[in-house]
Amino acid sequence: MKFISFRLPNGLVKAGWLHKENYAVDMNERSQGTLPSTMLEFLQNQEQYMEAVKRWRDVSIEDAGVYPLEKVILLAPLPNPLSVRDFYSFEQHVKNSRARRGLDMIPEWYEFPVFYFSNHLAIKGPNEVIVFPAESMERDYELEIACVMGKMGSNILADQAEEYIFGFCILNDWSARDLQRKEMKVGLGPAKGKDFAASIGPYIVTKDELQSAEIGQLKLKMEAFVNGKRLSYGNTGDLYYSFGKMIERASAGVTLYPGEIIGSGTVGTGCLLELGEEVHPWLACGDEVSFSIEKLGTLTNKIGTG
Amino acid sequence: MKFISFRLPNGLVKAGWLHKENYAVDMNERSQGTLPSTMLEFLQNQEQYMEAVKRWRDVSIEDAGVYPLEKVILLAPLPNPLSVRDFYSFEQHVKNSRARRGLDMIPEWYEFPVFYFSNHLAIKGPNEVIVFPAESMERDYELEIACVMGKMGSNILADQAEEYIFGFCILNDWSARDLQRKEMKVGLGPAKGKDFAASIGPYIVTKDELQSAEIGQLKLKMEAFVNGKRLSYGNTGDLYYSFGKMIERASAGVTLYPGEIIGSGTVGTGCLLELGEEVHPWLACGDEVSFSIEKLGTLTNKIGTG
Repeated sequence: MKFISFRLPNGLVKAGWLHKENYAVDMNERSQGTLPSTMLEFLQNQEQYMEAVKRWRDVSIEDAGVYPLEKVILLAPLPNPLSVRDFYSFEQHVKNSRARRGLDMIPEWYEFPVFYFSNHLAIKGPNEVIVFPAESMERDYELEIACVMGKMGSNILADQAEEYIFGFCILNDWSARDLQRKEMKVGLGPAKGKDFAASIGPYIVTKDELQSAEIGQLKLKMEAFVNGKRLSYGNTGDLYYSFGKMIERASAGVTLYPGEIIGSGTVGTGCLLELGEEVHPWLACGDEVSFSIEKLGTLTNKIGTG
Repeated sequence: MKFISFRLPNGLVKAGWLHKENYAVDMNERSQGTLPSTMLEFLQNQEQYMEAVKRWRDVSIEDAGVYPLEKVILLAPLPNPLSVRDFYSFEQHVKNSRARRGLDMIPEWYEFPVFYFSNHLAIKGPNEVIVFPAESMERDYELEIACVMGKMGSNILADQAEEYIFGFCILNDWSARDLQRKEMKVGLGPAKGKDFAASIGPYIVTKDELQSAEIGQLKLKMEAFVNGKRLSYGNTGDLYYSFGKMIERASAGVTLYPGEIIGSGTVGTGCLLELGEEVHPWLACGDEVSFSIEKLGTLTNKIGTG
């Protein structure tokens, strides 16, 4: 199933699922109040709610709570995640980005997956305009896949992690490279280079739809387009660290909660920093950036001014 | 005023304030439901609620909602902050910590304040037992002061920041130095070295209690004791970057919300890493760590095992 959040014409924000790609189903209205109104509440009790979803899943377009997609505004499928941990799990991206700065690969990178916490209060949705910090000239995208946690746990082993995952979505970790480069010299990692926006969407695809006996073996084509031109392409199969390994690392000595997001890090070639100015200049106002990941849809945003 | 969160003998978690240091006032019960039951809800509307607080502030010990302090369990005053940004704003700490690793000072440190996001879902309260990751041998504390945001805003200027602050509290940013040192080589900053716990408390002191015309001029003595022996002492007056400057940086191009926490970073001498093994070995199971900051009380935690 494809879970979404959306705004109705009356302004109310609702959560639900896509029906036949053309209809948004308001889970709360459709279930006569049995199911909640927000994706976060849904996730916090999703094992139980998924049983109820089965009863209400099939709809006809006359049913209460069923809206033509063009009548609603899609939001980030989880507009208020509890946190965003962003990993660094594609080897080619780390190698390429460091080579661009004249740096060798880091031996420790091969020992364990690493992440930083990004600003989960700055999540954007499909078609939302992205405003970079005014002083940034090196405006970049980052093509990533993310998973959404669906179950509480700590010290989760990689081979048991799938049970804690609710589903997957596309993630664009927008990056102001000039700000990032400068602040990272101080050693605390990226912050202002990333904290203004990360977009997710258009929906969360439940793990069963990926028909993968093992999430660690996900093989999904990933592409990024700027103004319709394909610049980046990779595959989730190139992950050096699987989502299982990432969840094992994140949950070591720490409780993970439903509604937390885990990002993969950028796929190889998945940002302008790696591609270089010979391929494309930094993003400019009005540019349209579209990400497509097989089975996860297309996430499009435009660059705007504040 | 000193705002607290606490657990009643019946298990319910409530928010309120201290009365004469000896009584916990349940703001919701005391106000007959006018005030909310959680500190986060209170903060989200605190300018309005503070008006109501004036009506209910003075209590006698027979009033409904007034509990002897020994009958309740104090929790983190804000058990579920929306985020924790931890800065690095005391020059001496940065110099000392780097010197210990044979590194010079970073020129960029003097250009702007930097921070990282810590795990706001792992906040601990007064007297809570702190469990370090089992594989960490280099267990450390970090003596910090934090402010709690009380008003939404973005692009806040340093000299207007005070209006956005609700109050201040003590922060202990527990640090597993061996994990931190290793992961920081990869360049994304600290994560597993810090994400298992940060404690705050015992209360949030509203800014008016600090009688500071300018929060940037806070001069409060800071001390850390391990098993009763004073090891660290500093003063908030040594901050190179004021809370105003930190809030200006955090809010540049980003919306800050009530209930977010901003930590100062460690005061000079405020951790075992700086002091060295000649002063004290790394923390061990059973050690009691107490922080006192003038006007902000004392925050004590014990080291335990998982």
